[in-house]
Amino acid sequence: MVAPLKVGLAGLGTVGASVVRLIGQQRSALALRCGRPIEIVAVSARSRGKDRGIDLKGLRWFADPVKLAADPDIDVFVELIGGVGNPARAAVTSALKAGKSVVTANKALLASHGVALATLAEKRAVALNFEAAVGGVIPIVKTLREGLSGNSIERVYGILNGTCNYILTRMEQEGLTFDACLKEAQRLGYAEANPSFDVDGHDTAQKLSILASLTFGIKADPKSIYVEGISSIAPADLAAAEELGYRIKLLGVAVKTGQGIEQRVHPTFVRKDSAIAQVMGVTNAVTIDAEGIAPITLVGAGAGGVATASAVVADIADIARGVRVAPFARPVGRLTTSKKAPMQHHEGGYYIRLLAVDKPGTAATIAKRMAQQKISMESIVQRHRGPAGQGKGAVPVILITYATAEDAVRKALAAVKRDRVISGEPQLIRIEKN
Amino acid sequence: MVAPLKVGLAGLGTVGASVVRLIGQQRSALALRCGRPIEIVAVSARSRGKDRGIDLKGLRWFADPVKLAADPDIDVFVELIGGVGNPARAAVTSALKAGKSVVTANKALLASHGVALATLAEKRAVALNFEAAVGGVIPIVKTLREGLSGNSIERVYGILNGTCNYILTRMEQEGLTFDACLKEAQRLGYAEANPSFDVDGHDTAQKLSILASLTFGIKADPKSIYVEGISSIAPADLAAAEELGYRIKLLGVAVKTGQGIEQRVHPTFVRKDSAIAQVMGVTNAVTIDAEGIAPITLVGAGAGGVATASAVVADIADIARGVRVAPFARPVGRLTTSKKAPMQHHEGGYYIRLLAVDKPGTAATIAKRMAQQKISMESIVQRHRGPAGQGKGAVPVILITYATAEDAVRKALAAVKRDRVISGEPQLIRIEKN
Repeated sequence: MVAPLKVGLAGLGTVGASVVRLIGQQRSALALRCGRPIEIVAVSARSRGKDRGIDLKGLRWFADPVKLAADPDIDVFVELIGGVGNPARAAVTSALKAGKSVVTANKALLASHGVALATLAEKRAVALNFEAAVGGVIPIVKTLREGLSGNSIERVYGILNGTCNYILTRMEQEGLTFDACLKEAQRLGYAEANPSFDVDGHDTAQKLSILASLTFGIKADPKSIYVEGISSIAPADLAAAEELGYRIKLLGVAVKTGQGIEQRVHPTFVRKDSAIAQVMGVTNAVTIDAEGIAPITLVGAGAGGVATASAVVADIADIARGVRVAPFARPVGRLTTSKKAPMQHHEGGYYIRLLAVDKPGTAATIAKRMAQQKISMESIVQRHRGPAGQGKGAVPVILITYATAEDAVRKALAAVKRDRVISGEPQLIRIEKN
Repeated sequence: MVAPLKVGLAGLGTVGASVVRLIGQQRSALALRCGRPIEIVAVSARSRGKDRGIDLKGLRWFADPVKLAADPDIDVFVELIGGVGNPARAAVTSALKAGKSVVTANKALLASHGVALATLAEKRAVALNFEAAVGGVIPIVKTLREGLSGNSIERVYGILNGTCNYILTRMEQEGLTFDACLKEAQRLGYAEANPSFDVDGHDTAQKLSILASLTFGIKADPKSIYVEGISSIAPADLAAAEELGYRIKLLGVAVKTGQGIEQRVHPTFVRKDSAIAQVMGVTNAVTIDAEGIAPITLVGAGAGGVATASAVVADIADIARGVRVAPFARPVGRLTTSKKAPMQHHEGGYYIRLLAVDKPGTAATIAKRMAQQKISMESIVQRHRGPAGQGKGAVPVILITYATAEDAVRKALAAVKRDRVISGEPQLIRIEKN
């Protein structure tokens, strides 16, 4: 038998413990499939005594993950500490510098320091694998890195945050408010006590930056992504979407345009009969549009111990097999710099919900302002009376535009506001063609 | 620059021509992603003069694909001839014996001779890649072979034949008969003049045998698969499915049971809100159930020149990168023999549609026969009158059973027939839990 692949693992939370368990359970299958056994030989975590339901007997213990990372007796370093800074960053850097392959589930680290880490990996010709960083168990990194090499990809987009999708699903199914669903998600453990990172779209942006890098050869950089969260979505928007044949999903989208790669995270209207619209609850999904072929969609659990651990183990197995692929699918030196998407130039359809003042001429004024900006309307729905609590004399008006520049829409809405024919702020949600 | 990977390609139909085109279009991207250029240097096809819309200038021409396969000046042989016999088989064999990696889209060849070919590949330590053989552009072979190494997979199932799914989709949406939709599919080029291979389930079985081999480590063998086609499906079945919250799909299913791996192809009821039920028209999809995680579903174009060619090019790119994975994910010597699924022991829910004689006591008789076999009923729907043309006094009765052995259902229905309370043959469709 060939010598085993010796793994050092730092971070024994839910995912780390699941990795230890899976590698134990699949020991013989993995050896068969990789041509050599995979053995965890050393671990590191914050507290040694904690009961994690796994047997750590016989494994060397390191209080310092950075020391573990550089230990001469390991072949692969698995980083499941998390966080953009140290010790995760120092540990991964140390492992790569020591010529060890690295597996990580750390999207924040990759989104911010992926290029620097990939440079180190390239220098030592070792692997830097991160399937678990995006989409949990969905093999999206492998698919973009290796599976679609022959295609010219035009767009990649997905539901990358289970918390947001859970909240939007519940809002849609139960007619509840964002706040109510967020509280429920927190109670069920689907949302953090401080939910901003998830619901404001930053988690999605980090993941999108990685997918965009793999797809389009740009350097991962969340700062070049336009980001908008879901906290402004109202039950009225979900009801309108339903009526118009859409669902609302928080998507991360990276798309080739005439101006370069546009990267954006925001709530979107997606056609109810599209594959992505079917994805409910905490599930994740990614759709890939490549030239000349129908969309490819991958769906699966985006989080959870076993799901994430599965992706980590698959990454380790690839290293055991001897597979080495450039971390971002091409030499680091060939990655280009991404520019922030100028959203004023974004082209697409728009859903607009206004509270119009209930007096003659209001609809005509709105229509005129839209026409002045050369915006074609696909539909205008005016309800006779607003729901309770929206102010006397306020009438909800819902507009769906054909594809137009965002600039024009913003200008038209500003004019409508100046005309004093609406009350409050207009709601604006982009429609993603799919 | 590293030396190019030299490719010899046999078969210049729609897929072959698309491969030549894609490799041309993606030349620099492929070189960047693989670390070396990919060059088609020689081709073989039946007719040399035919206009295929691609430039074959500068490529060596071989009248005999077997000669091309063994040519010392190629590194990789791409087989797109098709068919289970020669010249495809001889050419692939010859290439592998000459120590060349092979890429093929030939499901029939793999289903029947995959083990022998994988043995040759293993002996010479070369790649035998066949992503295009199952599910077209969907990276299902890569996902099962490499992506889910850490998981214990319990079931894999999918819509693997676009023709059947197109026909079932049209029957459902338009209320048309199987014959009418088949004719339409033939007119649109989605079905062959002789449609039996597709509509009777044999194409699905060949593909399933490959997926089952990758998933469960059994030798691919379509003869060990229970196969039933879609020609008996009636508009009444689709209408009943719709009413009961299901869709009907022709699935290939491979599942771990107490008796081993059960492989079967047949029309199935799938829950309308499942990912697989959303797959309409010629699209393909595969769902993977692994222990401890939510199902993973991959959706995409299952056929078509560019879609299939994409998968072929991805396979070639992997070879250019130096990736070598065991063709069926483990050493050939460790593949076990698959046994034919004894369907009488199949456990599951059933949809049963009967034409009952319209007289007192009929329902009681049917219920009694079911009870005698200890079959629990989830629902019984009896319509007052059958649709026109179903015979005077015939009343459609639709039964949905809870999970039970197929044996028991068959016995109960035989008893009901002997009781002379139904006219004609009962319709029986398995329900796939999902």
